[in-house]
Amino acid sequence: MDPQDHHRSPSLQPPELEKILVLRRPYIFSVHEHDFSNRFHLLKAYESPLPLHDFVHAHAQCVKAVLCSGTYPIKAELIRHLPALQLIASAATGVNHIDMVECGRRGIIVTNAGDTYSDDVADGSVGLLIDVMRRITSGDRFVRGGYWLTSTHYPLGSNLRGKRVGIVGLGNIGSRVATRLEAMGCIVSYTSRHKKHSTPFTFYPNILQLAFDSDALVLCCSLTNDTRHMIDNKVMMALGKKGVIVNVGRGALIDEAELVKCLVEGDIGGVGLDVFEKEPNVPKELFELDNVVLLPHNTAFTKESFYDAAQVLIGNLEAFFTNKPLLTPVDNKF
Amino acid sequence: MDPQDHHRSPSLQPPELEKILVLRRPYIFSVHEHDFSNRFHLLKAYESPLPLHDFVHAHAQCVKAVLCSGTYPIKAELIRHLPALQLIASAATGVNHIDMVECGRRGIIVTNAGDTYSDDVADGSVGLLIDVMRRITSGDRFVRGGYWLTSTHYPLGSNLRGKRVGIVGLGNIGSRVATRLEAMGCIVSYTSRHKKHSTPFTFYPNILQLAFDSDALVLCCSLTNDTRHMIDNKVMMALGKKGVIVNVGRGALIDEAELVKCLVEGDIGGVGLDVFEKEPNVPKELFELDNVVLLPHNTAFTKESFYDAAQVLIGNLEAFFTNKPLLTPVDNKF
Repeated sequence: MDPQDHHRSPSLQPPELEKILVLRRPYIFSVHEHDFSNRFHLLKAYESPLPLHDFVHAHAQCVKAVLCSGTYPIKAELIRHLPALQLIASAATGVNHIDMVECGRRGIIVTNAGDTYSDDVADGSVGLLIDVMRRITSGDRFVRGGYWLTSTHYPLGSNLRGKRVGIVGLGNIGSRVATRLEAMGCIVSYTSRHKKHSTPFTFYPNILQLAFDSDALVLCCSLTNDTRHMIDNKVMMALGKKGVIVNVGRGALIDEAELVKCLVEGDIGGVGLDVFEKEPNVPKELFELDNVVLLPHNTAFTKESFYDAAQVLIGNLEAFFTNKPLLTPVDNKF
Repeated sequence: MDPQDHHRSPSLQPPELEKILVLRRPYIFSVHEHDFSNRFHLLKAYESPLPLHDFVHAHAQCVKAVLCSGTYPIKAELIRHLPALQLIASAATGVNHIDMVECGRRGIIVTNAGDTYSDDVADGSVGLLIDVMRRITSGDRFVRGGYWLTSTHYPLGSNLRGKRVGIVGLGNIGSRVATRLEAMGCIVSYTSRHKKHSTPFTFYPNILQLAFDSDALVLCCSLTNDTRHMIDNKVMMALGKKGVIVNVGRGALIDEAELVKCLVEGDIGGVGLDVFEKEPNVPKELFELDNVVLLPHNTAFTKESFYDAAQVLIGNLEAFFTNKPLLTPVDNKF
């Protein structure tokens, strides 16, 4: 046996570090893994030769906390296999991947990344809106493809000033999107679960009417049973042939099959998508379209937001283990 | 002879329409040519079988007005061949393609598109800045290329909030860029010919010091003898390895050969370019780089700005021919 192996053995992990189950390697570990491994004993299911079920079973009695990213589903079945579980600390803001009903039933607390990503998602959504309306990514393809040399007339885009933009979900992200769009001279309206009395923007209780009255929609709400497929064929037809949709929320806010159909048939003007129904799978039909901008679910991710998110995650985990108030507990309505 | 030809003959043009020389088909004609041909007798050099010199010579005595786009050079030699010329009406805002010294000497008035394009160029420059910093166009390539399926970790971009952005030229466009960047939480400074006492932003008399103190530079000044190659190797090295440059002014504001060298060697962080030194030629080395966004000199062009520009051009031409005040005469300092 290589003596080096001793140093790698989990049995030599300092005993005072609290154990945290990590099911899949979170994206944030690509930069900040050491910040976690220095403070916690990470039980990495994804590095174990054991099948996930066996790995979970082996640590079931001692795992009080799970650290998860925003895409790996934390289902009721898994939660039931962890009788000691008290905390799920998510690196994401949205918690639609976590079974909140089971957490509520068990009294398991869920923390998220709080407001960490809001500015970056807002910047990304405004970037996508400008990109689609002003044809930036397709313009770049035009130049890189050498077409400028033979065809001087690149198709015209649409301006932003005076355009009516409907924000779907005027929360931490949506309100930041509104500030940015106002600076560009857009006319901002919104729909949300409730009218916000602190904002000057026009409230629409109904997404269909908002779509009728908008040139573009920016989706930045949570995915819930109420919002799943809220952007359906009717909403897209109401938005119309010149209408643009930006989605930085979750893929399933849109009926993706209908979206593809509407785009292919020219029933809407264009889309900027950071999120998809079956990530990382993206409908192939979109790859052929020039009025579409596609991102790999990364509008939240910058060097700076990763640093901030790591601090929030570590803060929540340390607070939990030392019985201090959590930084960003999620209000569990279930 | 086909009797149809009579209808096409210039001799049947209604005599009351004023003659305007058009040397190259302006981009704006792709949408609004009829708005001009309904009001003026367009002498289109680019549709004549005659060589340009002969065409100009044939109409030299009667041409009082030239309509030009933003790229075709109006040189002293051409102006000297038009003894009756009194007005050059440009569809662009910048007049660096017109020999203003010769115009000043001859008392020829130059009009431009005024403020028509300012909002669209500002939106485009902010779109380019977000795109480069947040890697939107390269993200779209990543998704379209199918790389998301095999590599989940797309490289992180940089956030905008708190970044120090230096605006080069705080005029109609630059001040609009500043408003947009402030809404994103950027810290705005600027350099300009003169300190503007009406703005709250920090003024730098020196581009080199501005570059030292900035994370990004947005170039939206005119091209003059003073600004040609103002972004040279020294300025780029001062901006540094993470620094971003957006150029929506004119290509020759940057020493393009040095820019390519700095990008290839990693001496600056990235660029968003709407303009180039030898348009439509773009240095091939840029096509290989992922931290570069390239546009075909179109940040000014939308359906809406074209409509507005057509109104301004027609307004200037009609004002000239009816001895009324011009809408947007250019102050000729030469």
